[in-house]
Amino acid sequence: MKKRLNFALIGAGRIGKVHAETIAFRIPETALTAVCDIDAGAADAIARRCGIPRAAAGTAEIFADPAIDAVMICSSTNTHANLIIEAAQAGKHIFCEKPIDHSLEKIDRALEAVHKAGVKLQIGFNRRFDPNFVRVRRSIATGEIGTPHLLHIVSRDPGPPPLAYIKVSGGMFLDMTIHDFDMARFLVGSEVTEVYAAAGVRVNPDIGKAGDVDTAVIVLRFANGVIGTIDNCRQAPYGYDQRVEVLGSLGAIATENCYPNRAVISTAESVRRDLPLNFFMERYAESFANELQAFVEAIVHDRQTPVTGLDGRIPVVMALAARKSHEEGRPVMLDEIAAEEARLETITP
Amino acid sequence: MKKRLNFALIGAGRIGKVHAETIAFRIPETALTAVCDIDAGAADAIARRCGIPRAAAGTAEIFADPAIDAVMICSSTNTHANLIIEAAQAGKHIFCEKPIDHSLEKIDRALEAVHKAGVKLQIGFNRRFDPNFVRVRRSIATGEIGTPHLLHIVSRDPGPPPLAYIKVSGGMFLDMTIHDFDMARFLVGSEVTEVYAAAGVRVNPDIGKAGDVDTAVIVLRFANGVIGTIDNCRQAPYGYDQRVEVLGSLGAIATENCYPNRAVISTAESVRRDLPLNFFMERYAESFANELQAFVEAIVHDRQTPVTGLDGRIPVVMALAARKSHEEGRPVMLDEIAAEEARLETITP
Amino acid sequence: MKKRLNFALIGAGRIGKVHAETIAFRIPETALTAVCDIDAGAADAIARRCGIPRAAAGTAEIFADPAIDAVMICSSTNTHANLIIEAAQAGKHIFCEKPIDHSLEKIDRALEAVHKAGVKLQIGFNRRFDPNFVRVRRSIATGEIGTPHLLHIVSRDPGPPPLAYIKVSGGMFLDMTIHDFDMARFLVGSEVTEVYAAAGVRVNPDIGKAGDVDTAVIVLRFANGVIGTIDNCRQAPYGYDQRVEVLGSLGAIATENCYPNRAVISTAESVRRDLPLNFFMERYAESFANELQAFVEAIVHDRQTPVTGLDGRIPVVMALAARKSHEEGRPVMLDEIAAEEARLETITP
Amino acid sequence: MKKRLNFALIGAGRIGKVHAETIAFRIPETALTAVCDIDAGAADAIARRCGIPRAAAGTAEIFADPAIDAVMICSSTNTHANLIIEAAQAGKHIFCEKPIDHSLEKIDRALEAVHKAGVKLQIGFNRRFDPNFVRVRRSIATGEIGTPHLLHIVSRDPGPPPLAYIKVSGGMFLDMTIHDFDMARFLVGSEVTEVYAAAGVRVNPDIGKAGDVDTAVIVLRFANGVIGTIDNCRQAPYGYDQRVEVLGSLGAIATENCYPNRAVISTAESVRRDLPLNFFMERYAESFANELQAFVEAIVHDRQTPVTGLDGRIPVVMALAARKSHEEGRPVMLDEIAAEEARLETITP
Repeated sequence: MKKRLNFALIGAGRIGKVHAETIAFRIPETALTAVCDIDAGAADAIARRCGIPRAAAGTAEIFADPAIDAVMICSSTNTHANLIIEAAQAGKHIFCEKPIDHSLEKIDRALEAVHKAGVKLQIGFNRRFDPNFVRVRRSIATGEIGTPHLLHIVSRDPGPPPLAYIKVSGGMFLDMTIHDFDMARFLVGSEVTEVYAAAGVRVNPDIGKAGDVDTAVIVLRFANGVIGTIDNCRQAPYGYDQRVEVLGSLGAIATENCYPNRAVISTAESVRRDLPLNFFMERYAESFANELQAFVEAIVHDRQTPVTGLDGRIPVVMALAARKSHEEGRPVMLDEIAAEEARLETITP
Repeated sequence: MKKRLNFALIGAGRIGKVHAETIAFRIPETALTAVCDIDAGAADAIARRCGIPRAAAGTAEIFADPAIDAVMICSSTNTHANLIIEAAQAGKHIFCEKPIDHSLEKIDRALEAVHKAGVKLQIGFNRRFDPNFVRVRRSIATGEIGTPHLLHIVSRDPGPPPLAYIKVSGGMFLDMTIHDFDMARFLVGSEVTEVYAAAGVRVNPDIGKAGDVDTAVIVLRFANGVIGTIDNCRQAPYGYDQRVEVLGSLGAIATENCYPNRAVISTAESVRRDLPLNFFMERYAESFANELQAFVEAIVHDRQTPVTGLDGRIPVVMALAARKSHEEGRPVMLDEIAAEEARLETITP
Repeated sequence: MKKRLNFALIGAGRIGKVHAETIAFRIPETALTAVCDIDAGAADAIARRCGIPRAAAGTAEIFADPAIDAVMICSSTNTHANLIIEAAQAGKHIFCEKPIDHSLEKIDRALEAVHKAGVKLQIGFNRRFDPNFVRVRRSIATGEIGTPHLLHIVSRDPGPPPLAYIKVSGGMFLDMTIHDFDMARFLVGSEVTEVYAAAGVRVNPDIGKAGDVDTAVIVLRFANGVIGTIDNCRQAPYGYDQRVEVLGSLGAIATENCYPNRAVISTAESVRRDLPLNFFMERYAESFANELQAFVEAIVHDRQTPVTGLDGRIPVVMALAARKSHEEGRPVMLDEIAAEEARLETITP
Repeated sequence: MKKRLNFALIGAGRIGKVHAETIAFRIPETALTAVCDIDAGAADAIARRCGIPRAAAGTAEIFADPAIDAVMICSSTNTHANLIIEAAQAGKHIFCEKPIDHSLEKIDRALEAVHKAGVKLQIGFNRRFDPNFVRVRRSIATGEIGTPHLLHIVSRDPGPPPLAYIKVSGGMFLDMTIHDFDMARFLVGSEVTEVYAAAGVRVNPDIGKAGDVDTAVIVLRFANGVIGTIDNCRQAPYGYDQRVEVLGSLGAIATENCYPNRAVISTAESVRRDLPLNFFMERYAESFANELQAFVEAIVHDRQTPVTGLDGRIPVVMALAARKSHEEGRPVMLDEIAAEEARLETITP
């Protein structure tokens, strides 16, 4: 029998805790052997909760430990690229939260390091592992609805993040739509060539003053001719709204939101149900476990991870194109974004 | 008690028959006293079916009859503008099918004639009278969902019309999306200022050869800041797909499709229901009756019709803007469309 | 071409008005030539509304008129049996509202008169013509769900009728459940052999004081082995609740309630829709027109009506059995109800 | 901080494995320290999977171990009562699968032993912990739907169990309906006084030859006046059907089935979704974890378990009454079942 894979967790915040619990409690083939965070208390709390034997003093200690097979990078975005490089150089497999970075140049340096080291890299686009979106992807991949024509993604948060976050997040296209950009590519199975963004400030004028938007429609044109739309808002009063629809030549598939229960209450006022699952921790709970399971399997069976470094890079290009489209009021080709694009070939796995 | 209103029907085709039956069987305050069509047999058939005493030899006979209060213009689009002018000059109230015309200049001449004659004019945007869309409009108008932010209209036909029709229809934006342009204005209660159309040929290459598209997403920007999308396809394999969604500051409202029954069948294969009502005759049956009822009430109570001449003109402007956007690959301001626009003021009711 | 069928309306109340409008406005092959009611004003109002040339002085005048082909008996229940007999003797076809009578003996005399006269008789079990229940019946009849095993009917009124009505109605089983007894036979396509009723007074103690119940579950055992339940309540706070479910060997079919629109409103409180259609005039509007259409076709094509006199008699037997079951706290065989049963053979069409 | 609770598992079958994984992976406050099964291989497999240090030679070894705080009895039904007695005498807290036994006398001896020892006992009626039924119970308990009037439980298995099982299970009322009997009491919050069962053999004649039924409707009369129905079938071709509905004075609440995803596929044939979650391992996964969590909390906080020994006993009485009702073709009072009833008082916690 194969020995257990040893994981270390870098970043003991909210999402780090989710991943630590998955490794500790739900994937028997793995063990968590170290955790580190700049907040030592946070690291200790997770260590106790998940039975992790060691809270490491720093990432160097983790990278230097030959017993560690893989790291989960759950620290803040600006640290991702360098940590990937260091982990790759240390020969560790890498699970990294999205986005890799806002700078294509930094992303490309990280991907090159991974490529050179030959380690596995998986980016945390967890929604690909949600049973609903898996079902939609399967419907397209198997031809159940024929050739896809139109894609519509609704992705709305229950409420905007703190202004402090918005100021450093790179803006809505990079912090929120980026998931939908990935979903669009994943579902359609083709690359986006052009983006048009119509966006505005509807929810909170302070978001506008911070230089961002809070409401947007993004039109995507795919290489295979599909036309897609993403419908984003930072505030849906009824909660977390996460749906997709695809029309194909033989039919359509659409997903509804997920709810905490399936009860319908009928009174003299209305026929109603409780609000959808809110927020991503509940709505996507299963997908977080599934993505790590897939990462472990990619390592164990030595095959490509289901969300590669390139899969992490392209949504950043799309987000930058959407931002440019919004600023210039015109459709933007993805080709326009990148002299860096020329380098893409060399790093494709 | 008020005497019955006497109607004459011009155009005894499919939609003419629907309106004749409404007048004959469902609105007791009205009577159908004449019908004419270039196909005398069609006119006779409707006359027999609906108990219309007279199949007139031509429209001149109808306009000359002082006993006739109102006409329903259901002939082909290219005849609408002139018939409106003649009817107005004869002092008849006018119900006219959409679109008025493809030429803004001809539309404006027709609207001026109506304005001068002081008769009532109502355009046949029947979907405004569908109980589902009435409910959505009410939700916005009463503030039930707060300030609207995002609008999404899905409007897909079960299959494309004959190529012969497509060649003369003015194209999808003018023959199909025009209903959705009207719906967008009606629901949001604000004017569209800019249109961006991403369109393609997905269903049938012959449609492309005929110079038209069959699949499109149109992004609308409204004066009040709302961003809207229209999702069109000439072919939905499962039938007629007619839905809208609006997100507002306090909530959202969305309508589902209408079905011939409410039965759900569960077998070893699936949990399923029958296909949606197909086609507009079934899906919008109630709205056709409601729109004429509203027209009759506007005449009886001498008030403005709920769909004015200007309401008939603006969707044509939007369609022309969408076509231009598609051709030039950029967002188009509605202002760009019309030198004619300058004349709008003079004809506003 | 066949001449129009001439109908006369007996009873100008609520349901009479519905039928008059159907004959006048929706079935071109028919004409309404007379109406009578003990309330002359009510008769006149319908005559004006529906263009009926004559308000007859009494039923005798109607039965004596050789131009009248068929009568619609919409007067109070206690008059039905005698009017059927008189109409049959006058050679008129008969559409009669349910129930025929509460007395099996009176019912049997009426059915014998119909049988002897050879006229058509249809009982007003309109729900058989509702598109939802038609779909369920079709599912069973075609084998779509295999051999039926279990039937569940939910039938709840929005609120109880006036106490005055309850005192003369024969009780809930005869005035309300009777529709469900008919529906059960119609859907399953087999006769009920045994009935068990568990009933109580939950809604209003005055109903109990009047000797009736307002809430009940009735278990039906069918000759073909199906077990059915009827779930009745005189008060559903959310409105009119009319659903059925059937489980078969290959699947199940279930119908949902009908709503005035298909809109779903999502706010910070709930995801909700408006209340179901309320009350039977709205919910079953289409079925009222369909049943008369079927009656006219049975006359025109000289075939058996889809709801015969026997179909009108059996639900009364079931109601009497349910009442006995409730009173005696035990299952009751339908055979127990009737010495009269022996006569059934002679009157079967 | 409180030390971890040490659990031992007795019975390493399907449900034992579920509980072992919950204790091992999902409740950090607990540890699994021993397992035993007459099939040593099964015990070993679970031990390896869940990191259990010891596969005990027999239950005696477990009861004798002072380090063990609680046992989970997941062995065959006929062993439950004696194991409860032995565990209680050894001072262990007890989680026991349902039913306790088919004999009220054996049940009562077990409950007396628990009572005398003062240990906690919880019966595995896991469905009480399903989020859907929790929501329904809350709706009734809080008065959201007013005073309950009618309850309807649909509970159908995807297919019948092996005949060998049916021959020893005590019959459908004891092996399947027992869950619904518990659900009925739990939801309504009142005791059932009378039961009427209409049952038959519809699915497989061999089940009838084995002396059992496979399809049934059971009518329940509650002390508080509520009338309930349970709709059971051993075979629903579309899978596992688990729903409840309650009508109250202020409204109704109904739960739908649970599905593996929320996708709806529309093609030229139908508008459909995938089949419901099938079978109880998937459908009730969450409830299995929740019930053990509740058991642990009852121990830790020294309070009554949410499903007591009496809660385990009463559904057995109901099942025996249903069997008697079916055999005798009449409603049966629960009082008829038990001279043993008199002893109930002495063992009520």
